[in-house]
Amino acid sequence: MAKDQQQDFNIFENMDEIAVQLEEALESKHYNEARHILAESNEADAAHAIEELPKELAAVAFRMLPKSMGADVFSYLESDTQEALMEGLTEREVTETVNELFLDDAVDFLEEMPANVVKRVLRYSSPDRRLQINKLLNYPEDSAGSLMTVEMIQLRRSWTVGESLKHIRETGHNKETIYTCYVTNQTAVLEGVVSVHELLCSSDDVRIEDLMDPDVISIETTDDQEYASRLFHHYDFIALPVVDKENRLVGIITIDDALDVITEEATEDMQRMAAMTPNEHPYLRTSVLRLANRRIVWLLVLMISGMLNGAILGQFEDAFVALPLLVTFIPVLTDTGGNAGAQTSTLVIRALTLGEIKPSDALRVLWKEFRVSIICGLILALVTAARVYFMMSPDPLTTLTVSLALFCTVVLAKFVGSLLPILAQILKVDPAIMAAPLITTIVDAVSLIIYFEMAKVLLKI
Amino acid sequence: MAKDQQQDFNIFENMDEIAVQLEEALESKHYNEARHILAESNEADAAHAIEELPKELAAVAFRMLPKSMGADVFSYLESDTQEALMEGLTEREVTETVNELFLDDAVDFLEEMPANVVKRVLRYSSPDRRLQINKLLNYPEDSAGSLMTVEMIQLRRSWTVGESLKHIRETGHNKETIYTCYVTNQTAVLEGVVSVHELLCSSDDVRIEDLMDPDVISIETTDDQEYASRLFHHYDFIALPVVDKENRLVGIITIDDALDVITEEATEDMQRMAAMTPNEHPYLRTSVLRLANRRIVWLLVLMISGMLNGAILGQFEDAFVALPLLVTFIPVLTDTGGNAGAQTSTLVIRALTLGEIKPSDALRVLWKEFRVSIICGLILALVTAARVYFMMSPDPLTTLTVSLALFCTVVLAKFVGSLLPILAQILKVDPAIMAAPLITTIVDAVSLIIYFEMAKVLLKI
Repeated sequence: MAKDQQQDFNIFENMDEIAVQLEEALESKHYNEARHILAESNEADAAHAIEELPKELAAVAFRMLPKSMGADVFSYLESDTQEALMEGLTEREVTETVNELFLDDAVDFLEEMPANVVKRVLRYSSPDRRLQINKLLNYPEDSAGSLMTVEMIQLRRSWTVGESLKHIRETGHNKETIYTCYVTNQTAVLEGVVSVHELLCSSDDVRIEDLMDPDVISIETTDDQEYASRLFHHYDFIALPVVDKENRLVGIITIDDALDVITEEATEDMQRMAAMTPNEHPYLRTSVLRLANRRIVWLLVLMISGMLNGAILGQFEDAFVALPLLVTFIPVLTDTGGNAGAQTSTLVIRALTLGEIKPSDALRVLWKEFRVSIICGLILALVTAARVYFMMSPDPLTTLTVSLALFCTVVLAKFVGSLLPILAQILKVDPAIMAAPLITTIVDAVSLIIYFEMAKVLLKI
Repeated sequence: MAKDQQQDFNIFENMDEIAVQLEEALESKHYNEARHILAESNEADAAHAIEELPKELAAVAFRMLPKSMGADVFSYLESDTQEALMEGLTEREVTETVNELFLDDAVDFLEEMPANVVKRVLRYSSPDRRLQINKLLNYPEDSAGSLMTVEMIQLRRSWTVGESLKHIRETGHNKETIYTCYVTNQTAVLEGVVSVHELLCSSDDVRIEDLMDPDVISIETTDDQEYASRLFHHYDFIALPVVDKENRLVGIITIDDALDVITEEATEDMQRMAAMTPNEHPYLRTSVLRLANRRIVWLLVLMISGMLNGAILGQFEDAFVALPLLVTFIPVLTDTGGNAGAQTSTLVIRALTLGEIKPSDALRVLWKEFRVSIICGLILALVTAARVYFMMSPDPLTTLTVSLALFCTVVLAKFVGSLLPILAQILKVDPAIMAAPLITTIVDAVSLIIYFEMAKVLLKI
């Protein structure tokens, strides 16, 4: 997070200000003022302002948008607002807006709508566009195909720079991006890539085949969208071509969509790591029931596995009745184990996600974490020993039991914390599930056994 | 993470393959082959391959790069590899490379170098460039100023599209991006923005002042880089202008840098949320001592606060000696409290980071979480009650004590989990610190008190 929060909210506060003004204008029926506010706003800000309005006013405001802004603003809206607009606007109004959208935004919208809405919207689309939309809707969610748009610039290798620029100027108007141009042959096979930057900085008579880079990095329609976003990150692309199995160009993904994916995936990973089923809707727009629903399953699973730890403790009833002091170290032991495991699993999960480590690095990771755990475990054990010996029980054996158990817990936690995410990756399960909550539960069980078994041996209880 | 991991590693595996081939070629002294491998690789992949080489070979490989690739590859290297190259290459070779870098990449490199290296590099730079670098180096790390480049296209409002395109074609060659052009007056004050897309799709005789958007969204040099990345995300920019206090254009930030910031900040937040001091180096390249150092402080702080919980438990020694069964529920109680709190704090922290909620939304968040906690708490308490009553102790009062304590713990955990991150934001502390580990420790203390006090009253121990 930013250190300097004060300053940071300037533009976002201004955005909220616009929302408030718009609502006031609409409620006092100053429609000209409302129209002015909307027309003067950036599309993203106008969308934000419309989001904040009560449902019945949202449609009124949306209708006031200048024609040139409608589709753009619509594409920035959350899907529940888009759905609400379906009720407030006439079918024809919505369809006209959707037909103005870039194809990938139209598909994003339709993906979230119920089937009857999709049908009605498609009925009003041109046959060509209907075909394209239907095709895109058939790609699995989260696939590169569902993220791409099919509006892109295609050049031929035999063209000159001058011809290409002329082609771009004639056909670029309704394309989402024109900056990365793909060179294809007659059967649409991808042969090269050239940027508008390179075109503009070359003479008009240079041939495309002499300028283009023939080693195009592309992905297939069925590849995962997260793979696409990793390619953007690795190669600093602003667009990425999507091809079919025969290497024919079928679409492109633009960086704004990749950026959304990166932010979304980080949010989802964080949610999974905190024992929740991911939810892509903004927090305040998610209902209480939905929020509870996303959490209760993992809470139950973890609680029921956690009851095992209670059963383990039950086995040592004699020990802690004989020496109640032992009980007072349980929270320190389990919390420290949980924290040490959370640190390791978080680092390993994130490194796996970013591709910094691969399952084949397992031994390197385990060896690294083993050494880290020895250092951390020793320091924590020494501090605990000092505290137990000097402040609680000057009995060397009790001191030894507690600090040794703590040391073992830290080493164990870091071992489990590095092993489980990598195992998950190998088994093609999302490593983010192997995070703090699950690891805490597992480490708790083993560390309680170690602790009390040690106590039984060392303290002869 | 991707569901389809297998397929996803294609290109990244190919990248590893290149690294292996390069090392083999160098070690068997097949220099021509090594040169060929490097020349045929994408710059990002060549950098990755060089990263993987032993230090002494890295300099050899770097020297083999075609001249046109050197600076680009250098900008993709990790800073420790860049530093190692300073030893393997002659000073002049490094300086030549640095002089070829885009200004923002040069500054990124120099920011990580010791002062003497910076001095030596600057000595070989042209006076102009030295001045620019020095200026950029003076911006605080993590500020917009340190992220920007000063190589951008500036147009005048009186120019026509034709004149502007001619200007871009003449001067665009050494600019990192040319796609967003800024319109400034003689004193460099920012007056408007126009994209190359718009220029190319307009007739040559249209005036810039008729085409440009005069409402430019910009940030100041001292603004936080995370604020910049949020603007990219919100407005789908590919470049963002940076101005000084007098609204004079001083530089631009490009989307590839914003994307790095977004990924980095998500990683840092995850690390903070798992009780670590953030570390921006890739996991496998971070030394064991450094890793331990980033973790031990929080482990110690949390352990020492966790000892308080031990002291609290000590107060209830009589209670659990009288009814040892009570001890066996401690792990379930503390773990469930920790998990419930982690869920809430993770959602709230992430929503604050993404700007979905603001401190002024505190009451809405608390009310929402309160209702969620009632639902989750009730379900968990009922399941626990059933288990205690039917499987462990058919005593209604014990059952009531345990399940009521669990219910209170869940409600409390969700309250603390939503309150603390928002408080932190208000106090201008990073909310990510108020995550699972700290909240678990706090909730543990209170829930243990509730549990045993309830036991004392209800069970009359």
